[in-house]
Amino acid sequence: MRQAGRYLPEYRAIRAGTDFLTLCKTPALAAEVTVQPVDILGVDAAIVFADILLVPEAMGSNLRFVKGDGPVFDPPIRSTTDAASLIRPDVERSLGYVFETIAEVRRVLDGRVPVIGFAGTPWTVAAYVVEGGTSKHYPSLLGWSHSDPAGLAGVLEKIADTSRDYLLGQIDAGAQALQVFDTWGGLLDAERFRAIALPALLRMIDGLRDKVPLIYYGQGTNHLLPILRELPIDVLSVDWRVPLDQVRQAVGPDIALQGNLDPTALLAPPAQIDRAVAKVVEAGRGGAHVVNLGHGILPMTPVEHARAFIDGAKRHGVQASA
Amino acid sequence: MRQAGRYLPEYRAIRAGTDFLTLCKTPALAAEVTVQPVDILGVDAAIVFADILLVPEAMGSNLRFVKGDGPVFDPPIRSTTDAASLIRPDVERSLGYVFETIAEVRRVLDGRVPVIGFAGTPWTVAAYVVEGGTSKHYPSLLGWSHSDPAGLAGVLEKIADTSRDYLLGQIDAGAQALQVFDTWGGLLDAERFRAIALPALLRMIDGLRDKVPLIYYGQGTNHLLPILRELPIDVLSVDWRVPLDQVRQAVGPDIALQGNLDPTALLAPPAQIDRAVAKVVEAGRGGAHVVNLGHGILPMTPVEHARAFIDGAKRHGVQASA
Repeated sequence: MRQAGRYLPEYRAIRAGTDFLTLCKTPALAAEVTVQPVDILGVDAAIVFADILLVPEAMGSNLRFVKGDGPVFDPPIRSTTDAASLIRPDVERSLGYVFETIAEVRRVLDGRVPVIGFAGTPWTVAAYVVEGGTSKHYPSLLGWSHSDPAGLAGVLEKIADTSRDYLLGQIDAGAQALQVFDTWGGLLDAERFRAIALPALLRMIDGLRDKVPLIYYGQGTNHLLPILRELPIDVLSVDWRVPLDQVRQAVGPDIALQGNLDPTALLAPPAQIDRAVAKVVEAGRGGAHVVNLGHGILPMTPVEHARAFIDGAKRHGVQASA
Repeated sequence: MRQAGRYLPEYRAIRAGTDFLTLCKTPALAAEVTVQPVDILGVDAAIVFADILLVPEAMGSNLRFVKGDGPVFDPPIRSTTDAASLIRPDVERSLGYVFETIAEVRRVLDGRVPVIGFAGTPWTVAAYVVEGGTSKHYPSLLGWSHSDPAGLAGVLEKIADTSRDYLLGQIDAGAQALQVFDTWGGLLDAERFRAIALPALLRMIDGLRDKVPLIYYGQGTNHLLPILRELPIDVLSVDWRVPLDQVRQAVGPDIALQGNLDPTALLAPPAQIDRAVAKVVEAGRGGAHVVNLGHGILPMTPVEHARAFIDGAKRHGVQASA
């Protein structure tokens, strides 16, 4: 459950006095909100409070968060000339606050549950940097991928190298698993994903799973399953659009699956949530399965509904593995 | 190619002096921009200039278009109480301007190419009305579908009935084919699509294909193909994420396919566009195929690139059917 705290009143109380980027960059506070869902809901892992766009910011892009509009990169990077401004930073110096957060979370949790670090995939990070923010169709990114694929590949490589440094730093700081978020990989068909997004993704995660378990999250990437099952990863996290038993058929028995309850299902009454969780657990029985939502939790989710999900996952999950 | 004119300078010249809704509601102007792509690019059909949200406006929802944000429904419809305000209008009176546009387009085209009418599916129209506008995740719509499916079903039925009246009116006015747009059907997994979106969709299109050819367009609906191939339609329009030969394998030989070049491919140089079109035509050889984009054309598409697509489609298409 990504950025799990955002629907908690305890999180909102902290955010009320602190803007999002400042919160990310203040290890004591970031660690506090990272641990909140563990204490309040009893989730089985903590995911460090951070953002995938901290990487391009550290590379020299000008990032700000605008209320209502989300992240804005101004100016966007839309050519190899623009991209010359992207540096490969010393991640200890520019992203060390995330490492400090991870170390602090490890200290506070004291072994209760593992800590998961994360980063965006190069393609997904580039989507925001090239477009200048969020977008429905990412025309600037996709246009660039058609008009100058070699130029865009150079940008993706740069992002991959810094992201790899960053993920290694997270491991050094104490992250016990890593998740890579590929929110926009599904914009590409399989052939173009393989040609454009995959090389930089492989470059970023090269060797990482020798150190910690590695999770890949894609959204709308069901048409990419034949490629994704070949990734050097341990867990494939999938969205809610296809039942887990069908995903299992497509990827074979050897990879763990994570997911995939529709997050909007948590807006239903708790008894219904419990039935929905039981169904997801049942669909996931064909292999290793990390019960989770199929996408980020919605901010308007009532806390008792999130708890019904966690409780159900534990109860039904234990039954499934018994 | 949906709303084909929007990237044409000739269209922009007319839009400069007229807001979007006024343009939709002024048959002489709407007919003029409907015909522009036929005259300027040589497309094989004209699609009437209108919007899927004219239907809920006619039903009593307060619609406006806000620059940058797109459509806004204020107040949104989020309960059966809210939905009581939705009426079943006399479509001749409230949407007659679209019928006049179609009649005028028929007159101007004088048989050169056929005219396609359209409407949104009840689920997709409800998405905007319930959410109050566009959204990334449509939490209000999806939340309602979980918390009160019967209440939402009532709203979808209402939209289906008016939409069917509207589509029948378009046929009476001269539409020679109809397309239904299901932009957001792909938010649902197959089981929920079948339970929630499908009944109202079937209600809307009941009997229509006995009168004119019927096209269904879905976006991100590849996981729904086993359901979609059973629809009473003539043409299934698909997005660009899965190659047509794979879609053909999934749906069998008896349905025509429409699509599916990635619209961002039109941002590449014309020679590359030609190769991309050839590939789509080749992938579509397994059955009847209407060459088209896999989604709406991007406003920043250069006109000569759109023309390269049309020319390539005609040349390669003729070769394919020769």
